[in-house]
Amino acid sequence: MHFRSHAKKTFPAISAQSGRAEWSRNILRSGIDRRTLLTTLALLPALSAPPLSVSASAETTSSGPLPSWNDGSAKQAILDFVRDTTDRASPKFVPLEERFATFDQDGTLWVEQPIYCQMAYCLDRVPVLAAQQPALKEVEPFKTVLSGNREAIAKLSMQDLEKIVLATLTGMTTDEFEADGRNWLASAKDPRWKRPYTELVYQPMLELMTYLRASGFKTYIVTGFGQDFVRLYSQQVYGIPPEQVIGSALAVKYGYGKDGKPILIPEPKVMLNDTAAGKPEGIHLMIGRRPNASFGNSTGDQQMLEYTSAGDGSRLSMLVLHDDAIREYAYGPAQGLPDTKIGALTPALYAEAKQKNWTVISMKNDWKKIFSFE
Amino acid sequence: MHFRSHAKKTFPAISAQSGRAEWSRNILRSGIDRRTLLTTLALLPALSAPPLSVSASAETTSSGPLPSWNDGSAKQAILDFVRDTTDRASPKFVPLEERFATFDQDGTLWVEQPIYCQMAYCLDRVPVLAAQQPALKEVEPFKTVLSGNREAIAKLSMQDLEKIVLATLTGMTTDEFEADGRNWLASAKDPRWKRPYTELVYQPMLELMTYLRASGFKTYIVTGFGQDFVRLYSQQVYGIPPEQVIGSALAVKYGYGKDGKPILIPEPKVMLNDTAAGKPEGIHLMIGRRPNASFGNSTGDQQMLEYTSAGDGSRLSMLVLHDDAIREYAYGPAQGLPDTKIGALTPALYAEAKQKNWTVISMKNDWKKIFSFE
Repeated sequence: MHFRSHAKKTFPAISAQSGRAEWSRNILRSGIDRRTLLTTLALLPALSAPPLSVSASAETTSSGPLPSWNDGSAKQAILDFVRDTTDRASPKFVPLEERFATFDQDGTLWVEQPIYCQMAYCLDRVPVLAAQQPALKEVEPFKTVLSGNREAIAKLSMQDLEKIVLATLTGMTTDEFEADGRNWLASAKDPRWKRPYTELVYQPMLELMTYLRASGFKTYIVTGFGQDFVRLYSQQVYGIPPEQVIGSALAVKYGYGKDGKPILIPEPKVMLNDTAAGKPEGIHLMIGRRPNASFGNSTGDQQMLEYTSAGDGSRLSMLVLHDDAIREYAYGPAQGLPDTKIGALTPALYAEAKQKNWTVISMKNDWKKIFSFE
Repeated sequence: MHFRSHAKKTFPAISAQSGRAEWSRNILRSGIDRRTLLTTLALLPALSAPPLSVSASAETTSSGPLPSWNDGSAKQAILDFVRDTTDRASPKFVPLEERFATFDQDGTLWVEQPIYCQMAYCLDRVPVLAAQQPALKEVEPFKTVLSGNREAIAKLSMQDLEKIVLATLTGMTTDEFEADGRNWLASAKDPRWKRPYTELVYQPMLELMTYLRASGFKTYIVTGFGQDFVRLYSQQVYGIPPEQVIGSALAVKYGYGKDGKPILIPEPKVMLNDTAAGKPEGIHLMIGRRPNASFGNSTGDQQMLEYTSAGDGSRLSMLVLHDDAIREYAYGPAQGLPDTKIGALTPALYAEAKQKNWTVISMKNDWKKIFSFE
């Protein structure tokens, strides 16, 4: 199970419940110098609205398939791609059964700040685990998590976090994990919006997925997070069935329970590490086809976008840029925004996107609204 | 990559082209003592036609959805299962998005005697490999394969066969493998019927898959064989798209070709061993749901059928029994048939099937025709 290698530095203000609001305020403060932000953005060609290629199609009006998208290069790239791949008269027409679109989750489909949803789940499971195995209370890193000492928790290493992930996601059968995960998701809330994590989904991306599905594309999630976790809510939240979720996965072992019935037990052994190069590898394993369109927001998605865009015909590769400190968060060193070390666009990835004609989506400029509840 | 652990003993008459017809004749001879066979069959309740539960449904007539199936307990089990799971008034109704059926391939959907199709491919690749790497000509087990000495080839160990599989399935990119595999499939022929392997598919099972799909089930292949190989023809042969093929898989590594374009390269490292316990484990990994129906023919399918039948509601678990020496092959120690060590029903599996009310399909009694070309 891989949780992007920079999780350590993001961890600080997250770990204790009381720290989350403060973290959010910090993020807001750091992003709220709007003048700097706007100046920076104006210098970036991909972020300012380029001249539209004129289209008489009704699709480009606000009553079209992407109502939460502003007219601009990002929206137009989507419309062009769908037209090129689904119009039988187009030289780039793609047969129905070969239409695939893959989406990163965290930071691409929903909020990933101040902490990845599943990491919050794992931390919340530490006290449960300690109640079952009291010896853990004296063992690091569990002792530190249980202490509630935010500074100490913030200093946990990647190895420590991985220990927490492996310990908290094992020891249950897959059925038990499913029940426990669903319970947690029903009650856990994001610290800033005070809403279930599953409501913090980007409305424009939901519209995009719906539009692509209506155009015959099979939509898949390809996440560095645990696929068993994302499968708990993928249908309800994204309209994506569990079998179309690819993610990091522990090996599971088949066995028999006390009643003799078959059970599957996750083992503390990573089978798929579905990030960076692991994404095209996971796509090959689980789909066996190259996607026509891919969507991401960070270096963890780089190889998936490369793999997608290197195919023949019309290809759509898009990166979500978090540049809206007011409505969501603003972060990413490529844009002179704060480098939170979570899911940001690096300068190198930004340069690759420009060179390969990938589209950068500005949350601030391209999206009329971010959440359905706005 | 796992090719059932008894491949060794089946190997004898197979390995050289000239030996295949002889092998087939041997199989036919050993099965052709029809009196013994019929006596044995008469003693096995699951194989003689039991009293039908009377059904007025048009589905049980020959104009129904399973025209190549004789009326009998096997056909009735299928019709009952579909009725129970798809009738909204049924207490066992299954919502559309939760309908899944998983099929073993070799011996369940198509002929597995005298040799697994993909093993034939790997053996045929040895001379190609030796031409590229002449040093291999002096290295075992390649030297033996190249010798054409059938007796010597027959004595190769499982370790030797695995070496051949790993060597012949690596060293190409996934795209190169796809092209090579398609070429081979287009020209290779089964020794008995002198037809492409891809025509040796059981017509009744094609009808069953079509019927289940028409009833809203997603059909998946779950094979101990290489999923990348089966994906080459799954759509054309079974109407099953590549992304619904689960099989054994080598790890693939993402990289860049000489032209800088992304490539995926299979490594000599088994990532999924999709047989026996590996089947429910693979189903969990790739689908994340428990199937409602599963179909197999050997101990490699035991755990998949256990996992399927242990779920709630209506479940269908079926085993294909190869008891038709005239039209196909007859083998399987549970029935007093020759023990070829390929995909046979063992006494233990047969007992489990009886105890758990799984249905054994008699190819001889339950199928009007076996191949579409009959």
